[in-house]
Amino acid sequence: MSSSYQPRPADNGFLLFNVLQAPAQLAALSDLTEADQGLMEQVLDEAGKFVGEVVAPLSRTGDEIGCRWNAGSVTTPPGFRDAYQAFWQAGWPALSCAEEDGGQGLPWVLEGVLYEWLSAANHGWTMAPGLLHGAYECLKHHGHAELKAAYLSKIASGEWLATMCLTEAHAGSDLGMVRTQAIAQAGGQFPGEHRISGSKIFISGGEHDLSDNIVHLVLARLPGAAPGPKGLSLFLAPKFLPDGTRNGAHCERIEEKMGLHGSPTCVMRFEDATGWLVGQPGAGLNAMFIMMNAARVHVALQGIGLLDAAWQKADAYAHERRQMRAPGPRPASRGEGDSADLLVEHPAMRRILDVQRAWIDAGRLLAYRTGLALDQARHHPEATEREQAQRWCSLVTPVLKAAWTHQAFYGASECLQVFGGHGYVREWGIEQIVRDSRVSMIYEGTNEIQAVDLLLRKVLPDGGAALGQVLLSLRGSLDASRDFDAEVLRRLAELRYLTTTLAAACGSDAVLASQVADDYLRAVALVLMGWAWAQIAQTPGADQARWQTPFKAFRERVLPELDLRLKLIKLQLPQASVAHTA
Amino acid sequence: MSSSYQPRPADNGFLLFNVLQAPAQLAALSDLTEADQGLMEQVLDEAGKFVGEVVAPLSRTGDEIGCRWNAGSVTTPPGFRDAYQAFWQAGWPALSCAEEDGGQGLPWVLEGVLYEWLSAANHGWTMAPGLLHGAYECLKHHGHAELKAAYLSKIASGEWLATMCLTEAHAGSDLGMVRTQAIAQAGGQFPGEHRISGSKIFISGGEHDLSDNIVHLVLARLPGAAPGPKGLSLFLAPKFLPDGTRNGAHCERIEEKMGLHGSPTCVMRFEDATGWLVGQPGAGLNAMFIMMNAARVHVALQGIGLLDAAWQKADAYAHERRQMRAPGPRPASRGEGDSADLLVEHPAMRRILDVQRAWIDAGRLLAYRTGLALDQARHHPEATEREQAQRWCSLVTPVLKAAWTHQAFYGASECLQVFGGHGYVREWGIEQIVRDSRVSMIYEGTNEIQAVDLLLRKVLPDGGAALGQVLLSLRGSLDASRDFDAEVLRRLAELRYLTTTLAAACGSDAVLASQVADDYLRAVALVLMGWAWAQIAQTPGADQARWQTPFKAFRERVLPELDLRLKLIKLQLPQASVAHTA
Repeated sequence: MSSSYQPRPADNGFLLFNVLQAPAQLAALSDLTEADQGLMEQVLDEAGKFVGEVVAPLSRTGDEIGCRWNAGSVTTPPGFRDAYQAFWQAGWPALSCAEEDGGQGLPWVLEGVLYEWLSAANHGWTMAPGLLHGAYECLKHHGHAELKAAYLSKIASGEWLATMCLTEAHAGSDLGMVRTQAIAQAGGQFPGEHRISGSKIFISGGEHDLSDNIVHLVLARLPGAAPGPKGLSLFLAPKFLPDGTRNGAHCERIEEKMGLHGSPTCVMRFEDATGWLVGQPGAGLNAMFIMMNAARVHVALQGIGLLDAAWQKADAYAHERRQMRAPGPRPASRGEGDSADLLVEHPAMRRILDVQRAWIDAGRLLAYRTGLALDQARHHPEATEREQAQRWCSLVTPVLKAAWTHQAFYGASECLQVFGGHGYVREWGIEQIVRDSRVSMIYEGTNEIQAVDLLLRKVLPDGGAALGQVLLSLRGSLDASRDFDAEVLRRLAELRYLTTTLAAACGSDAVLASQVADDYLRAVALVLMGWAWAQIAQTPGADQARWQTPFKAFRERVLPELDLRLKLIKLQLPQASVAHTA
Repeated sequence: MSSSYQPRPADNGFLLFNVLQAPAQLAALSDLTEADQGLMEQVLDEAGKFVGEVVAPLSRTGDEIGCRWNAGSVTTPPGFRDAYQAFWQAGWPALSCAEEDGGQGLPWVLEGVLYEWLSAANHGWTMAPGLLHGAYECLKHHGHAELKAAYLSKIASGEWLATMCLTEAHAGSDLGMVRTQAIAQAGGQFPGEHRISGSKIFISGGEHDLSDNIVHLVLARLPGAAPGPKGLSLFLAPKFLPDGTRNGAHCERIEEKMGLHGSPTCVMRFEDATGWLVGQPGAGLNAMFIMMNAARVHVALQGIGLLDAAWQKADAYAHERRQMRAPGPRPASRGEGDSADLLVEHPAMRRILDVQRAWIDAGRLLAYRTGLALDQARHHPEATEREQAQRWCSLVTPVLKAAWTHQAFYGASECLQVFGGHGYVREWGIEQIVRDSRVSMIYEGTNEIQAVDLLLRKVLPDGGAALGQVLLSLRGSLDASRDFDAEVLRRLAELRYLTTTLAAACGSDAVLASQVADDYLRAVALVLMGWAWAQIAQTPGADQARWQTPFKAFRERVLPELDLRLKLIKLQLPQASVAHTA
């Protein structure tokens, strides 16, 4: 009755090739496998098949049976291990890893599309490989050569899965409070050997049966280390040591969660576990920051994927279910004997579908552009280009993560509404998407933390200069003689002006800045969406039914929220600053 | 770790007694037990104890164990039957039933507060008695005397629970498509005996072990009845017939749902079930409409209660959990050894809590006023007063139902965010509220249907006259010399003007009206909230910490949405009408 998610590569391809001209942008980069459109299309087609045929059909079982804990072992749902073994053996985790590490050296943006689809198809299953990429970057850039020789290619290929062991019971978003201890050990298999002891919570994939070994990256504190975040160091501690013995890394239980039952969320106990230092002592958080942008774009793509999965279900249901007569003239879909019309003919249902589509398509364009910027930041031969790309990633990533994970949950709930009472029961699978997606607003930095990151850490410190440069860089692709482009240009100017006003009003007033941070992030998201839709709408081949309908929904139903956000911000500012704003 | 919901009667009492002056309004009514403030406070105190001590502690078990189906029988979660038996034996279901039917003849508004608390404490359990009141009204006003003699007092007291069997698999919101058949039977125990056959879905409490009998009210079609809603008749079919034999009303299975596991949602098969006509043949929907306003206010109160339950959990957590330093000067709550501050000191968390509080308090005031209007519509000696009260109920009820069930789900999700990762796991019980509350946006008429009901059925047909009268009636309680009251007066005028514009622009264009119906309902909700907060804020004793803080959140964070809604509506109107709007 409920069919599983099916990628539609033509949709993603239109954005990647026709709108963004990705191959031309990638051609300028060094160290990347020559990725022309033909190769990229071929990779996406293969990826789409794997996702749709192998991974998507397991989503329902993943939710209903879930992961089971028994005496320290975790059994994943039926089919999960086989699918994972097929996944890594087909080379998918290594897609964008460097060729020297056994990877395929393809652009990051392809990995981005792959993970968007995987998350849409089966969020729980995808959690496991999703963690590989951060671990790979972290180890590659900070690991000692001997440690890398033993672990890097295993992580690149995905033969061994990885975890990030950060959070502790008393330290959620506040990693400075971490208490796990690491005590240096003389000698050892690799340099920097330590014994690690402590408890970690919320460890995705801390224990499972998907891969033959699990490589934990653990944040811990050396004896006498400074209090707070600067006293943290990072260690690599595998489940099985190189000699095959079991390390002291144990799963004490798994959490009962609202959703995401296909991914075991583990409480881990490290008991004199052998681990090796990754990076410098006290630089544990730094070692992890390297992967933060990419990981947050991954989560934004989860949001986009989950919203697309919800939309796909709701759109299909709205095209087959009849309820009541729609208002207005007889629709073409009303047959002779039909006393009721398809749900899709009812304005309230049409609005839900078109608005979500507007979010998905704009989110994809922005996320793919950010994926290209990640590639550029790493591989562009010109330093100024790398810096510009880095600036984009730094500023746009928190916006993507917060706004699109928010929309995943709230928009999936709107899609549930299309099903009426049938949406509330398991049968159609839509309520699972609502439950699964909720976590994406929390992990990898809560959405409130993203907003603070954007405004307090990235926009205000330089008085809005970097954001101004990003916004200015968008103007070149807009044409003021076009109606909508002119509006977007006006909105870009408005946002720059607001940013300057905010920088002046907030000064060093972190309270004021915190009070407006959520609305500010939302305002940036809406302006960026405006730019994205201007790009899509003017691309040749953006046909009426597929692209112009959500474009209209964006203009009429989504973008007007921008004025509300500006108003909400102004209401928090001191009167004097408000008087200066438009 | 997670404590169960505790009613706070002083909060509700402030709104009921200080702001609304309920006893004075009720004093004018006939047929009601003398309900002075002392008696009402006593009833609320007792109700609060029962809810907090007996019903609330079962909520978690209700979710985790849920209802179990076995060979046609349904076992409710441990403790549910005992609690229900205690509930009806203490007389709670009969609170506002007429004394002649064994009830206590107290005002409806007290029942409203009781059910708000019950839903907050244990939504699943509350579904069962929640259905009694509609069945009581329906049977009381439409049942044959002999049928009433056998069933009315059993339903009034709650000794036997009741169901409403409406929906069928192919007919969700569209009851005109109902196919269940009823065939007249000569003779019989009571007049109008029929044999009923057909299948019903989504029947809350269709089978369970809470009460010794279950009284089904079933919508069915007589042979040769007109197609569509006018061919529907209503029948009473008990689980056990008067002679003790089992009737042909069987539970085939119960649904697996997103939440509300404490309430069995049954697929019912009627197989030559004996039933008796309630009301006239073909008037089945009419017979049910009598209870619709009250039932929808009940659901609005579920929303308010669930949001309060979510707020109560989040507020408690925010006052005990420390994470990171809050911005700004050292808060009083930061002790000597504290490296982190309470969540409640962080602006983003404070905003979430205050905004939800603003919705809960305004929702309560509006729902209690509507409860008083339900009492007035039934019991006021003056016809014009009854009509005015009826007008209020008719127009405000869909607004309350849609806007506050929406807020229950989305606001509960915001409250979940206060817990961070801990909100996503079961431990704290907040995710249960999010899952449970989602259904309230769907049942008793989806929120989209409420919006169509408001605009297309109630506002536009008389050109906005009735709504205009309701809005005008609010002006007397506002004082233009007060800053906020003046703004509310302006908003009331704005809404009246918009309504007139809409009436002119839509004419008979049901498509246009449907396109703006959701935004229109939301605009009405925000204006009514404005009125409610003006009332609360100016009431003596509305102290700073408790009432002025959410009032400020309403002004600065909630009310600004009104301009967005007006803008969204105007964007759908033809240009000519927009030119005329302010």
